[in-house]
Amino acid sequence: MDKMLETIQAPSDVKRLSIRELKQLCSEIREFLIENVSKTGGHLASNLGVVELTVALERVFNFPDDKIIFDVGHQAYVHKILTGRRDMFGTLRKFGGLSGFPKRSESEYDVFDTGHSSTSVSAALGMARARDLDGGKSNIIALFGDGALTGGEIYEALNDAGHTKTPLILVLNDNTMSISKNVGAVSRHLRNIRINRLYFRSKRHVSNFLDHIPIAGKWIRYMIEKVKTWIRRKVLPTTLFEDMGFKYIGPVNGHDIRSLIACFEYAKSERKPVLIHVKTVKGKGYAAAEKHPECFHGVGAFDPLTGEIPPSGESYSSRFGKKLVELAERNRKITAITCAMPDGTGLIGFSKKFKDRFFDVGIAEQHGVTFAAGMAAAGYTPVIPLYSTFLQRAYDQTLHDVCLQDLHVVFPVDRAGIVGADGETHQGIYDLSYLSAMPNMTVLSPSSFEQLDDMLEYAVNVHKGPIAIRYPRGGTQSPYPYERFVPNAVYTKKNGKDVTILTLGRMLLRAAETEKILKCHGISAEITEVPTMHPLNSAAIIAAAMKTGCVVTIEDNVRSGGFGEHIADILAENGVHCGFKAFGFPLTPIEHGSVDELDKKYGMDADTIAKTIIKMIRKNQNGKDQT
Amino acid sequence: MDKMLETIQAPSDVKRLSIRELKQLCSEIREFLIENVSKTGGHLASNLGVVELTVALERVFNFPDDKIIFDVGHQAYVHKILTGRRDMFGTLRKFGGLSGFPKRSESEYDVFDTGHSSTSVSAALGMARARDLDGGKSNIIALFGDGALTGGEIYEALNDAGHTKTPLILVLNDNTMSISKNVGAVSRHLRNIRINRLYFRSKRHVSNFLDHIPIAGKWIRYMIEKVKTWIRRKVLPTTLFEDMGFKYIGPVNGHDIRSLIACFEYAKSERKPVLIHVKTVKGKGYAAAEKHPECFHGVGAFDPLTGEIPPSGESYSSRFGKKLVELAERNRKITAITCAMPDGTGLIGFSKKFKDRFFDVGIAEQHGVTFAAGMAAAGYTPVIPLYSTFLQRAYDQTLHDVCLQDLHVVFPVDRAGIVGADGETHQGIYDLSYLSAMPNMTVLSPSSFEQLDDMLEYAVNVHKGPIAIRYPRGGTQSPYPYERFVPNAVYTKKNGKDVTILTLGRMLLRAAETEKILKCHGISAEITEVPTMHPLNSAAIIAAAMKTGCVVTIEDNVRSGGFGEHIADILAENGVHCGFKAFGFPLTPIEHGSVDELDKKYGMDADTIAKTIIKMIRKNQNGKDQT
Repeated sequence: MDKMLETIQAPSDVKRLSIRELKQLCSEIREFLIENVSKTGGHLASNLGVVELTVALERVFNFPDDKIIFDVGHQAYVHKILTGRRDMFGTLRKFGGLSGFPKRSESEYDVFDTGHSSTSVSAALGMARARDLDGGKSNIIALFGDGALTGGEIYEALNDAGHTKTPLILVLNDNTMSISKNVGAVSRHLRNIRINRLYFRSKRHVSNFLDHIPIAGKWIRYMIEKVKTWIRRKVLPTTLFEDMGFKYIGPVNGHDIRSLIACFEYAKSERKPVLIHVKTVKGKGYAAAEKHPECFHGVGAFDPLTGEIPPSGESYSSRFGKKLVELAERNRKITAITCAMPDGTGLIGFSKKFKDRFFDVGIAEQHGVTFAAGMAAAGYTPVIPLYSTFLQRAYDQTLHDVCLQDLHVVFPVDRAGIVGADGETHQGIYDLSYLSAMPNMTVLSPSSFEQLDDMLEYAVNVHKGPIAIRYPRGGTQSPYPYERFVPNAVYTKKNGKDVTILTLGRMLLRAAETEKILKCHGISAEITEVPTMHPLNSAAIIAAAMKTGCVVTIEDNVRSGGFGEHIADILAENGVHCGFKAFGFPLTPIEHGSVDELDKKYGMDADTIAKTIIKMIRKNQNGKDQT
Repeated sequence: MDKMLETIQAPSDVKRLSIRELKQLCSEIREFLIENVSKTGGHLASNLGVVELTVALERVFNFPDDKIIFDVGHQAYVHKILTGRRDMFGTLRKFGGLSGFPKRSESEYDVFDTGHSSTSVSAALGMARARDLDGGKSNIIALFGDGALTGGEIYEALNDAGHTKTPLILVLNDNTMSISKNVGAVSRHLRNIRINRLYFRSKRHVSNFLDHIPIAGKWIRYMIEKVKTWIRRKVLPTTLFEDMGFKYIGPVNGHDIRSLIACFEYAKSERKPVLIHVKTVKGKGYAAAEKHPECFHGVGAFDPLTGEIPPSGESYSSRFGKKLVELAERNRKITAITCAMPDGTGLIGFSKKFKDRFFDVGIAEQHGVTFAAGMAAAGYTPVIPLYSTFLQRAYDQTLHDVCLQDLHVVFPVDRAGIVGADGETHQGIYDLSYLSAMPNMTVLSPSSFEQLDDMLEYAVNVHKGPIAIRYPRGGTQSPYPYERFVPNAVYTKKNGKDVTILTLGRMLLRAAETEKILKCHGISAEITEVPTMHPLNSAAIIAAAMKTGCVVTIEDNVRSGGFGEHIADILAENGVHCGFKAFGFPLTPIEHGSVDELDKKYGMDADTIAKTIIKMIRKNQNGKDQT
């Protein structure tokens, strides 16, 4: 049999299929996803959940004239498969290959890049209003999960969209999960709608009843009329979304392609703000993923037959979680807060052992940080681990609520630096810059698990005020022996005389590799680790610089506002005139790829660093020779 | 007659007053507010609106054992008056005087510092859960305006708070305004509740009716029962807040002290999450402020009898608004977006002239910026003026939605640098650091109105990609003749040979003053203006530095990650070894006071700058003499 999927080159090909054929197509897409993602890794469960949903959208709407924005964006695989990118799936999330998220640079069918949660309605409304100004008629669709409804930005957008008549189609993909299990009042509200199957049938019953109610006696008639009005006005529009001004349709079975098509056709005809509530099963059609969707959210390569995922080794995240449990046993003032990431951030152990001191606030980084500030103001020591790139969402709360008040909140900054396969929107390469420009903030960066232990202990039990500990994805360890962490101390890991390499965290590894290459070229490099990145110990930095007269800095962060600039500033203001070169990432979006590939591309590999240092030292020597 | 107000030293004194005396007290507080704020300036209208509300709170609750958090915080004057700070009102918002916002450092009655919108529920929930862990019984109250409900963070918090049983008292101060007129679906929802006075009476009626409905016939009985169940379940809990899990009380007249006390007593007894909807009139009791609350939101000194406010001169805000109208007349792709600040940002003219291209999204900076990104992706050129300190709220959206996609969004950054009387939470001294560490971003800073005109024209009509134009509060003009703005160009405003002062924006004035002092000491300073702050023109910076061999930078921003550091970095990496000193604000919260006072305190006045330069030059000369 000819495979249906192979006949699809563009969404227009989907339009000529019968319902039966569409079902066949969905089943082939599922096979395709499991086969490919088991090899490349990627976001499996969320994409398995939206197969019918996406097929129905492509069937009803005319992309790219109509526009669709995927919230977060990791559920856009099916869209990519149907819009001419099927053949590239072998390169998914690999350097130079297909991105795991929508990318305008990749296809005209991707109209807005996403990566962080809860932005889709805002962007869609912007496009819808632009369309209105142009007098256009295209349909603008935002597709978001129920998890996105815990993020505040989406309410700002619903609030703005709901009071105008701008046609806009919102598709709520309700799988009762964000990354882990969903929390909060809105989640409960959705559950109530879902559970109460009677509700939607009853709506109809009530309407019929009202039209046929027999009237007996004047008083009854009066009261019944009053009640009828009340019911019409108040019972029928009951969901949160109707309160906010949206025409609500649903809930509809997100795996029933016929119903989906009918709903979308209806929504299209409405020409007003519409919300379609679609109920899907995350991981649908793949038993292992249906059972443990959180394990198949973002997954590495796995065995497609058994669904077995190779165990990952110890990481900074898991080490953090373990140490925090140990510390919390002895310090009852420690609390832990997560923004919908108990797994990713290593807090599962804590959440089980200290139920009453553990708070999952949803995908709500802003609230999470101010909530932590409130707890700190009340005498607790909240620890709120966040991925570097998601902490960005709480920039203002970190500065305004925590730092200005000098409150003791501990920020473990996970996935700091280059994260690899997730690409542009997930690279945690801005935090050194923004955190080190906030009042009262201290920023530490460990290069080994033992150092992380020390830092965490210091941060919760000794330090006062806001403090961040930033560590990379995975478990890259320093190649040098561990020395106990002392705040503000710098550590000479290797003595040398020609150049001082100042570095921290993951980059200690690159420094060590660089040192070896330099040695082969007869250059003796001193390696100095600066685990307290901010505020910097100026005296120690100056001493380290003066020793060799040549300073190189290496950091897993953008150059601007980062470690290297702070050091250049110290040297300049203190009149330390020495050779200087700073290595960090440029201010350009850093795409997906492995950490090694990206380091290499952006000149952060040992070869490039060493080459640059050699050139600089030769030049300096020539300069000296001439004088 | 002894004044009632003078007998109040602490909230406990409020507790012994009769309702009649409380009314008298309220009236005296109003007089006190008008008399004092007309002299000092400050937030008048919002405080006049919450007189009875605050008095009732102090009457019912036991502060500081019970805790109250004021959202935004500019409505805390009455609280301050009643908690022992009445005598300090002559110093309101003045250097060393009483802050215009709650400050933990000022009083034990202020439990959480605020300034930005929509944080109070998060902080209150943090304190409430801390209290629960301690086994405490205190009441935690968050008081917020209806404007705060357009900000996303509060939904994150409501969503988190509403699904637990943690006792928490939320007071919604609904005056139908944020700073200007409120917008959005939630605002409409509140209006519906307010307008429909029948609603609350009807609620009672419906309940009574349900209890007394006569039953006739089996079928009717069946259907009526069904309807009754429906009404109970669906009509009675109808507000958004009830949907989110709160016990809803209201709306209550916020100027009826007896009702307020009854409501608060009831809320206190409930021991669960409660929301009290209080309806107030902004500016209540002062005719001029009731009529134009937006003029009396944050006001300078005025005539208390006539309510006449001295006209303010042209400012960067008004000049921006004027120029934007002119540009929009010729470029139909220009749109303007405001986050509830059409007055403050100078957009009133635009909003009237280009109704269809003007969008007020509410206090919703996150949504505003992503919405702008959506419009830009659809081919428009959105201009979104924001106060520097409020743009912080949209850090992630600016980086993630605009910069990573290199979208053409224009960010006029108003109130950048020291703003003066509003203090810590409103100082716009972080934007140079965080904006210049974002991919694809360009940052300009004008020192005159003409330069602003040029920059705005360049930003909307010529530039592609994200661009920020940051300008100060007020209208500080460069003392040097205007030269047409050319991107990346640096301007030698004054030739000199001993030291190069690199500066931008408002600080050109300090540079000019410094130059004069230096001249008296025989030091010839070159003044170089760098209006394109980011990315910097390295070649021009290096040339300017080499000319004198001594570089000084002055910026209206924190030192860390700012203009000075970027320049130190350029000099260091290019081997330009010269004298260097950077002037900027330290990483410490900068309190309220006049701009001049704060500049002086933090060593940013011409005297201090000149003194430091003289010392540096003498030292360098000695150094040279010795060689």
